[in-house]
Amino acid sequence: MKGLYFDGKSLQYRTDLKKPRAAVGQSVIKVTHAAICNTDKEILKGYKPDFRGVLGHEFVGVVTDSLRPELIGKTVVGELNEGCGDCIYCLSGREKHCEKRKVIGIHQKWGCFAEYLQIADHLLHEVPSGLAPETAVYTESLAAALEIPNSVHLPSNKALALLGDGKLAYMIVQVLALMGIDVTVFGKTEQKLAAFKRFAKTTTEKVGQFETVIDATGSPSGIDLAQQLVRKRGNIIVKSTYAENVTLDLSYFVINEIRLTGTRCGPFEPALNLLARNLIDLQPIDFYDLSEYNKAFASRRFKAGFKL
Amino acid sequence: MKGLYFDGKSLQYRTDLKKPRAAVGQSVIKVTHAAICNTDKEILKGYKPDFRGVLGHEFVGVVTDSLRPELIGKTVVGELNEGCGDCIYCLSGREKHCEKRKVIGIHQKWGCFAEYLQIADHLLHEVPSGLAPETAVYTESLAAALEIPNSVHLPSNKALALLGDGKLAYMIVQVLALMGIDVTVFGKTEQKLAAFKRFAKTTTEKVGQFETVIDATGSPSGIDLAQQLVRKRGNIIVKSTYAENVTLDLSYFVINEIRLTGTRCGPFEPALNLLARNLIDLQPIDFYDLSEYNKAFASRRFKAGFKL
Repeated sequence: MKGLYFDGKSLQYRTDLKKPRAAVGQSVIKVTHAAICNTDKEILKGYKPDFRGVLGHEFVGVVTDSLRPELIGKTVVGELNEGCGDCIYCLSGREKHCEKRKVIGIHQKWGCFAEYLQIADHLLHEVPSGLAPETAVYTESLAAALEIPNSVHLPSNKALALLGDGKLAYMIVQVLALMGIDVTVFGKTEQKLAAFKRFAKTTTEKVGQFETVIDATGSPSGIDLAQQLVRKRGNIIVKSTYAENVTLDLSYFVINEIRLTGTRCGPFEPALNLLARNLIDLQPIDFYDLSEYNKAFASRRFKAGFKL
Repeated sequence: MKGLYFDGKSLQYRTDLKKPRAAVGQSVIKVTHAAICNTDKEILKGYKPDFRGVLGHEFVGVVTDSLRPELIGKTVVGELNEGCGDCIYCLSGREKHCEKRKVIGIHQKWGCFAEYLQIADHLLHEVPSGLAPETAVYTESLAAALEIPNSVHLPSNKALALLGDGKLAYMIVQVLALMGIDVTVFGKTEQKLAAFKRFAKTTTEKVGQFETVIDATGSPSGIDLAQQLVRKRGNIIVKSTYAENVTLDLSYFVINEIRLTGTRCGPFEPALNLLARNLIDLQPIDFYDLSEYNKAFASRRFKAGFKL
């Protein structure tokens, strides 16, 4: 089959990849749409040097092969983290923290930038009828945004600052706006902030004081700004991971009684619900053929991906 | 009056200090009992080089002078932080974070290692009748322990590690045990841990995995051990402040979705309630005359203080 293979250093477009098979607890998906996430770009920069295989983890597809016949023909999206099923993390609803987990397109499991993908049955979520695949492919990134109110209680009457004006920030601002929260988005340029104005106040100046600050900048400088903007006894929520090391001063957190919370992947069903109800504004994805992966990764549009 | 004056470098026993007067919103307390806190020792080591004045902030006394006559004659304890009364912190229940606050015996306000003390009326709490002053003098340190469950929700069925075997840890373990929480105390020596065995499991080995880890070691090494012992998506609560700088790795908190919470001073009324109901085991305090302050600060007993 065709696919984009990561050899530890760069991507290769290959047509000789082995098509996966169904197995106990594992179905095969024919990928119809896939999107590029910032994590994919970080991997190409060296974030996961040990990974070998097909890249990609945001997708929509159709189940073509499965030991569970009721799944065949369903249009699905899929979660990334496949745990061992046996450890304290898997048994306490924290499969994404399983020490032995495989992560689609990231760690020990091939991803979705290929014609077919093998994925654990329990990670699949059926796409509601009427929800276009071009929209459903946003499920994973919307779920990551929904993990913020899942992790930290965010009362709607407490002023909140969102740092960042990229794709993830655009999902987050909408999730927060649906909760009625008074959000101020801190961005680099007025041009990038324009789309945010429907949902929040926006600013390019680094002033103000907020009960909660969410860092979705994807940049190590985000946490410094977060510490400037958060009120004492407030919350700092960090969404970004990046290759660089960043250090924090512990006494700042103790003396000011700041809470720091890291959050990662989120819940798929609430994301599908919001998308199906047409409550989230999405920018059109720039779709390419797999063979045009260089163009796709270089795209400056809001989000790029592949149509198969 | 007599008192222990900190000149920015060391303590002096003086008999020529000016007795404070009552003022609008400020009463005068005749101190009967005062206790030495670790923070006092940190100040003598250089933690607050700008402070000048009488040291000490844990006390019991009697109101002798006040513009509010109903206060006169009452036996009281007092909170430390006197805010401006006007800012967002004072107006939102976070007086201890007011940027302009004075802190008794620590910042811009004389403390309790003296015959008399001036304190804002609203910081006073009456000692319930029947509660001995030798017990009530523990109110401030018990309140600091009670701030932990005030800050972080601690379900009783989630395993908790408490790092430290000192005075603060001994208050914390009892607060947690009263909530039915399964606590394991990590200490340096079996001898120091002996008293903890009534309330928790104890260990000197640094192994195990816990949903919540509380660092009350008072040592920069505590946060390293906390990171080893906490489960992914767990809580680290830090109680200690110290002069040394400690840095943290941000990506550890994001990838493992750890919550870090700093906590400081706590609520006095719940502390007085628990003390009045005789629910907290307290070691006797080693009381000295103010003039014996060198002996008092060098005491190796559980806690030392002054009787006036």
